[in-house]
This record gives sequence, C-alpha cells and structure tokens, in this order.
Amino acid sequence: MVIASVDGSMTSFDSEHSTSDISLRDFQAKIRAMYYDKDVQRGVDGTFMWLMEKVGELASALRQGTPEELALEFADVIAWLATIANVAGVDLSSALQEKYGSGCPGCGRLVCTCPMQEKP
Amino acid sequence: MVIASVDGSMTSFDSEHSTSDISLRDFQAKIRAMYYDKDVQRGVDGTFMWLMEKVGELASALRQGTPEELALEFADVIAWLATIANVAGVDLSSALQEKYGSGCPGCGRLVCTCPMQEKP
Repeated sequence: MVIASVDGSMTSFDSEHSTSDISLRDFQAKIRAMYYDKDVQRGVDGTFMWLMEKVGELASALRQGTPEELALEFADVIAWLATIANVAGVDLSSALQEKYGSGCPGCGRLVCTCPMQEKP
Repeated sequence: MVIASVDGSMTSFDSEHSTSDISLRDFQAKIRAMYYDKDVQRGVDGTFMWLMEKVGELASALRQGTPEELALEFADVIAWLATIANVAGVDLSSALQEKYGSGCPGCGRLVCTCPMQEKP
C-alpha cells in the first residue's frame, strides 16, 4: 500500500512485504512520525489514559460491534500501545521476539502444552 | 530467527524480514498456532480477563519496572490482543492498514496536525 506523506514523497507500511501485511517495526515508526511530538507532551500517564479508553471501546465492540467496528478498535488499541512504547523507549518487535520468538514462554513449544490456567 | 517447531520442522517469525523485525500477520499466526485450542475453550470473555491482567502488569512496569521487564510486559499485552483477535476472527494487520495506512485517521497527514485533545 503506497500513501502520500505530508511532504509529497511516497511511503508505505509494507514496501517490502505482501499487501496488507505490516512490519511491526515499520508500524511503530509510522506512529512515532505521526504522533511523537504530542505523545511526549502528554507523557506516559496521560497516554495510558487514552489506551484505557480504547480498551473499553474494544470491550464494547467485542460485545456488540460490527466486524468492521471491531477491527478498528483492535487497531486503535495497538496504535496506543505503540505510542506508549515510543514514549517509554521500547521496541515492540524486539520485545515480541524476546518473549515469544522461541515458542511458548512457559513450555517452550510452538504449540503450547502448558496447563490451561498457566498460559503465560 | 529460526526456531524448531514441535514436529521438528524449522520455522521463523521473520524469514523474509530483517533480524528482530516481525510481520504482524506472522506473529498473529504464531500465537494462533501456540494457543488457539486453549483460546477457543476460554472464549472471548475469559481471554479478555487475561488481557486486563497483563495491562495491569504493564502499568506496574511503566511505574517501576526495569527496561527488560517493561519490554516483556508490552510483549504480553500484544500477545493477548493477538489471542483475542484470533478468537474474534480479526486480522490485526489488515485492521491497522485500514485505520492508519493512509496517515492519521483524524487529519489524514503522516505527521498529525489534529488538536491535542483530538488524537484519534
């Protein structure tokens, strides 16, 4: 997907990947470009409040939203997580690799065999 | 990063991408492979409770965690979002493209110019 940036150059979420797939690192960078100046002014606490609002909207959409509404609420929650990660200096892609890159963190398997109550 | 699957074949989060970057679609598929059988038994409501627990741990880590602990809590929150998305039948990558692929959903720009209180 190619989009026009504010300075007229062309950019994309997925220039190296298949259509509609997103590199998490690219997405976090895009959210940083879009919102970082505002995010640092708001800080982690103020940004976390926005995340909680979006989590509430996700809960509502899971109960009674259309599939389209539900998808957009998931997108908002991930975007606000990326925003907080930017302010906190966390690379989400590396974090996921570290925790889940070798399989389930509990049992170490690609198909988890942990007891039901122990999913990590 | 190459990891061994339960059947002995080799798989990877990022076989087509640079080291430690993750395709969001690949990650969601890996979480599905690891946990889907448990997730459908638990259902959306039970899974959402786990997400909330992890959101609380993220808040705690933002207050007083080490950088390593903070990164792992972000990873857990995204993993539980991916789990719920799997149960609800939502493709996170497509959802992000739809909402944020053309820039800020509010002002349409790659660097948001919305008023401070209106970040979408």
